[in-house]
Amino acid sequence: MRGVIMHAPGDVRVEDREDPTVIEPTDAVIRLTATCICGSDLWPYRGVEPVDHTLMGHEYVGVVEEIGSAVQTLQVGDFVVGSFVVSDNTCEICRAGFQSKCVHAEFVAGTIGTQAQKARIPHADGTLVATPGQPDPELIPSLLAASDVLGTGWFAAVAAEAGPGKTVAVVGDGAVGLMAVLAAKELGAERIIAMSRHPQRQELARFYGATDVVEERGEEGVAKIKELTGGLGAHSVVEAVGTQESFMQAVGATRGGGHLGYVGVNYDVQIPGIELFFAGIHTLGGPAPVRRFLPELVQLIWDRRIDPGKVFDLTLPLEEAAEGYRAMDERRATKVLLTL
Amino acid sequence: MRGVIMHAPGDVRVEDREDPTVIEPTDAVIRLTATCICGSDLWPYRGVEPVDHTLMGHEYVGVVEEIGSAVQTLQVGDFVVGSFVVSDNTCEICRAGFQSKCVHAEFVAGTIGTQAQKARIPHADGTLVATPGQPDPELIPSLLAASDVLGTGWFAAVAAEAGPGKTVAVVGDGAVGLMAVLAAKELGAERIIAMSRHPQRQELARFYGATDVVEERGEEGVAKIKELTGGLGAHSVVEAVGTQESFMQAVGATRGGGHLGYVGVNYDVQIPGIELFFAGIHTLGGPAPVRRFLPELVQLIWDRRIDPGKVFDLTLPLEEAAEGYRAMDERRATKVLLTL
Repeated sequence: MRGVIMHAPGDVRVEDREDPTVIEPTDAVIRLTATCICGSDLWPYRGVEPVDHTLMGHEYVGVVEEIGSAVQTLQVGDFVVGSFVVSDNTCEICRAGFQSKCVHAEFVAGTIGTQAQKARIPHADGTLVATPGQPDPELIPSLLAASDVLGTGWFAAVAAEAGPGKTVAVVGDGAVGLMAVLAAKELGAERIIAMSRHPQRQELARFYGATDVVEERGEEGVAKIKELTGGLGAHSVVEAVGTQESFMQAVGATRGGGHLGYVGVNYDVQIPGIELFFAGIHTLGGPAPVRRFLPELVQLIWDRRIDPGKVFDLTLPLEEAAEGYRAMDERRATKVLLTL
Repeated sequence: MRGVIMHAPGDVRVEDREDPTVIEPTDAVIRLTATCICGSDLWPYRGVEPVDHTLMGHEYVGVVEEIGSAVQTLQVGDFVVGSFVVSDNTCEICRAGFQSKCVHAEFVAGTIGTQAQKARIPHADGTLVATPGQPDPELIPSLLAASDVLGTGWFAAVAAEAGPGKTVAVVGDGAVGLMAVLAAKELGAERIIAMSRHPQRQELARFYGATDVVEERGEEGVAKIKELTGGLGAHSVVEAVGTQESFMQAVGATRGGGHLGYVGVNYDVQIPGIELFFAGIHTLGGPAPVRRFLPELVQLIWDRRIDPGKVFDLTLPLEEAAEGYRAMDERRATKVLLTL
């Protein structure tokens, strides 16, 4: 089969890779219908994270082609959406809703690599969710978004306790930030402030439910959020950038006793303990337990109540993956869908 | 009146200070019955925080001597316990339970200084709580503990979501850590692991409800907590030390999706964002909103259901405050009560 391998920073190639097969009885092999490039794939691309002939890709939708003898909830031919972290969905941590910290957790990125024609998914019952039937082609982008960016933005909004009566500020206008806006809206937030200085993304944020846009950043951004919230700060803040400045902007924008949900942090961020302490806020972050939300998100998409697929603004065939990486690196695209 | 002034690091003197009077209509002036020295008073004492002729003390119980015209819930002669942070207890932040971040928040330490015969307490209705009557002398230490160490340990246990079915690990065997053990027990925790290598404090931790004691620290301490929790980590962890090592020990001891409550962080702590991210945990910390818990804590003490006063292991008259600071600095005492 064909699949993406990143040989070194900036060096993305589509090459022949061995076809995956069922190894463990809990495995499934899927034939991908679509996959995509994640903002986090740019970290190794830019040399911020190590990379050496790495199998790329961790977002995926597709059709089950083969299942192991222990797989119970899936059948060959099912259309499935999967999480970017493998989980058994039965252990104590999974049952508490933190599937990304499952005792069998394994990142799909790097070892499995779903920017490919096929993928072997371990713990298939606990990682994949079947759609109610074969989806219309127009639903594919949205279902694919559920695999990571939607699931991650949704988790961030839940972690920030977005809900009725709440003012939610979203730091970051990338795909995850936009999905957090969508989630905050669905969760019933009263006011949603998108922090963005990019006209097209501001427009998409408003489409997804943002009621206000703040262009200022850093301390000025914090001051603006306070001005909009009677001096108190937002009840709920989502951090979806992951730099030192954006993280501290998110901390500063959260009111005392408020909730900060953060879903991306790069390796250089150092949080001054004393600033977090005197902020007096709740935080919850980490790789999103997408599997917790997948059944609900799939249904919302199936019922056409949400349209997360609009975050994809460039579609390319898998064979042109290298151009997809370039487009995202150069910010010509927010998120690139790869067809198969 | 007489009161403690720290002229410089290590230089504690009891001197004549001006008698406080009601200034604002929401003020009360109280005559103190007892006060004490806090672990945090050692930071300036040791030169870790700046100090220059600072009025010391922020824990206090006493009798109301004078009230402003707007004070409604208190009368002259009432016995009161107060929080170490002034709060109006009516603003939006207070109503959400975060009185230490009140829009009128003011730290009692430094500007008011309750290591003294009298103190002016702003926003008296929102800061002080009257006891049901004049307390027996034996209840004074426990009521005084409610003012900070008990209230802070309680908040930490609540922040860590200690409760039925939960395993709670407490990092730190100082007065606040011991109070967190007491709180975890009262909140119904199933298992309480005190991290301590000090025999007398281990004994007190067991008295307050610890079911296990772990002497290891750092990575070894984390490994021990995992060993005791089926490899998962504790559901709830309290951080009550505030150093880099202890904070990261607390992060490491918390299971994925678990809750970390932290109530003391020194100025040098830098939290590696990526470690917090991959831990996948809830955190809540900061100066404790003691006022939220005071009515309940006063009643528990009044009914003799809890005995937090045992954390005081040295009692001295106010005039001997300097010796009290020395005893705590040299770790000859856990916590010093000053009589008036």
